[in-house]
Amino acid sequence: MKIRPLADRIVIKNVEAEETTKSGIILTGSAKEKPQVCEVVAVGPGGLVDGNQVEMTVKVGDRVLIAKYAGTEVKVDGDECTIVRQSDILAVVE
Amino acid sequence: MKIRPLADRIVIKNVEAEETTKSGIILTGSAKEKPQVCEVVAVGPGGLVDGNQVEMTVKVGDRVLIAKYAGTEVKVDGDECTIVRQSDILAVVE
Amino acid sequence: MKIRPLADRIVIKNVEAEETTKSGIILTGSAKEKPQVCEVVAVGPGGLVDGNQVEMTVKVGDRVLIAKYAGTEVKVDGDECTIVRQSDILAVVE
Amino acid sequence: MKIRPLADRIVIKNVEAEETTKSGIILTGSAKEKPQVCEVVAVGPGGLVDGNQVEMTVKVGDRVLIAKYAGTEVKVDGDECTIVRQSDILAVVE
Amino acid sequence: MKIRPLADRIVIKNVEAEETTKSGIILTGSAKEKPQVCEVVAVGPGGLVDGNQVEMTVKVGDRVLIAKYAGTEVKVDGDECTIVRQSDILAVVE
Amino acid sequence: MKIRPLADRIVIKNVEAEETTKSGIILTGSAKEKPQVCEVVAVGPGGLVDGNQVEMTVKVGDRVLIAKYAGTEVKVDGDECTIVRQSDILAVVE
Amino acid sequence: MKIRPLADRIVIKNVEAEETTKSGIILTGSAKEKPQVCEVVAVGPGGLVDGNQVEMTVKVGDRVLIAKYAGTEVKVDGDECTIVRQSDILAVVE
Repeated sequence: MKIRPLADRIVIKNVEAEETTKSGIILTGSAKEKPQVCEVVAVGPGGLVDGNQVEMTVKVGDRVLIAKYAGTEVKVDGDECTIVRQSDILAVVE
Repeated sequence: MKIRPLADRIVIKNVEAEETTKSGIILTGSAKEKPQVCEVVAVGPGGLVDGNQVEMTVKVGDRVLIAKYAGTEVKVDGDECTIVRQSDILAVVE
Repeated sequence: MKIRPLADRIVIKNVEAEETTKSGIILTGSAKEKPQVCEVVAVGPGGLVDGNQVEMTVKVGDRVLIAKYAGTEVKVDGDECTIVRQSDILAVVE
Repeated sequence: MKIRPLADRIVIKNVEAEETTKSGIILTGSAKEKPQVCEVVAVGPGGLVDGNQVEMTVKVGDRVLIAKYAGTEVKVDGDECTIVRQSDILAVVE
Repeated sequence: MKIRPLADRIVIKNVEAEETTKSGIILTGSAKEKPQVCEVVAVGPGGLVDGNQVEMTVKVGDRVLIAKYAGTEVKVDGDECTIVRQSDILAVVE
Repeated sequence: MKIRPLADRIVIKNVEAEETTKSGIILTGSAKEKPQVCEVVAVGPGGLVDGNQVEMTVKVGDRVLIAKYAGTEVKVDGDECTIVRQSDILAVVE
Repeated sequence: MKIRPLADRIVIKNVEAEETTKSGIILTGSAKEKPQVCEVVAVGPGGLVDGNQVEMTVKVGDRVLIAKYAGTEVKVDGDECTIVRQSDILAVVE
């Protein structure tokens, strides 16, 4: 089952980001806080959304920060995914 | 009784999607979660909606993911259908 | 008393739609669920509504599906009618 | 005291509409339901309202149906009047 | 202290309007209801407001009807005044 | 610490306005009501705000009336200041 | 981990601003009030946001005042950051 998002929508998947404390300790598992970093799985074509031209600026594979509670959760092949609008994506993490 | 949706509206019907777990087991009946996958039954003509030009990008027969609680439920010939706006459709499933 | 709706408004009247179950049984009276099918009684001229050009796409005699709770109920010659905007009409039933 | 409404506003006054039941009986006084029919007393000039050009399509003397609770009640020479926007007028009754 | 309102704003002051009942009796003081009639004290220059061109159509000295609770009350030299937007003015009383 | 407001924002500071009663008595201190008169301390450059061109019409040193509760309070060098949008300024007091 | 904000978004970090009272005393630690002054860490490219062209007017290193509760808190390398839209930035502090 492959998902092709419409308009300015983007499919993202949680990723287990390594988190390093200021002093250099790498936290794993339950010792670290839940990251908001997600990986882009699929990107819509953009175009006219509510009368405004939208150009997609993220691409598949990008790691992104999203606003909490943004988007709709869907199940794709047993995986939890989230479909958000590009405007819900705050930043790309490099 | 045939339904011809207006403007950017789309008539969809729930489909019993086969769901495969990560490990390959196919779930059926009550063992699986309620899918959000619907099949497009009828598509409106698009055109000017709230002053914005809308082009229809889904077609009859597409399987789509919709936001929960989106749209209005109607009964057509005893079948439960839902009428949504195209903007309520998150993605096409292929 | 004749009603001439303004702008993009449409006067509709409930119709007692025959409802057929999947297996072919025709339900009548209290045995069937309340239909959402209405008949168009009068159609406004369309034109500029909130700055957007609206073209009327339904006509008198059309049977339409409307969103529940849409519009304003009025009494015309003792008949219950409802005045809705064209954007409240989900689909035409043929 | 004469009222000259601004922009797309219209001054209306309740009228005691005769109401006829389906079977032809004319109801008067407390036996009939409160009508929503009003008479147009004064009409604004229209023009630019919230950036949209508004053309006035009702005229003084028209009997109109308005949405309940629309507008602001004012007293003019002891008469109860209501000032509504033209968009609050649902239909003209002929 | 002189007030020069900005944009589409207008300074108004309550006036003690004479109120005549239908039968011709002139009510004064506490026997009459609180009028909504105000006098225009100062008028802003109009111009671009929220991206829309606004032309001022009332002038100083006009007696106007305003929506209840509209605007902000200010004190100018001990006098209670109200600053409203022109769109809060329902009608001019002549 | 100098504040340079962005876009259509304006920094204002409360001023202790002399207040004269109708009969000419000058009130001071706790005997007078809290004035809404503020002095403009800094003015943003205007320009495109939410897609609308905004021209600044107040200048530093103007005494202005603002809507109560408008804006955000900030501390600049121990002084209480408020940052408002120009559209929150009701009038200039001369 | 480097953050590249999208559209009109800006990454800011709280700074421990020195605060001087009116009489010249420099407050430190718990004796001073929580400042709203933040430092800009990263700036998005601007461009079309909701159909409006947005030009970025702040730059990395600027110290800015933001509205309380604006934006979304994220963790970058153990540091608390906040991602806001440029329109949430009230002023630049120099």
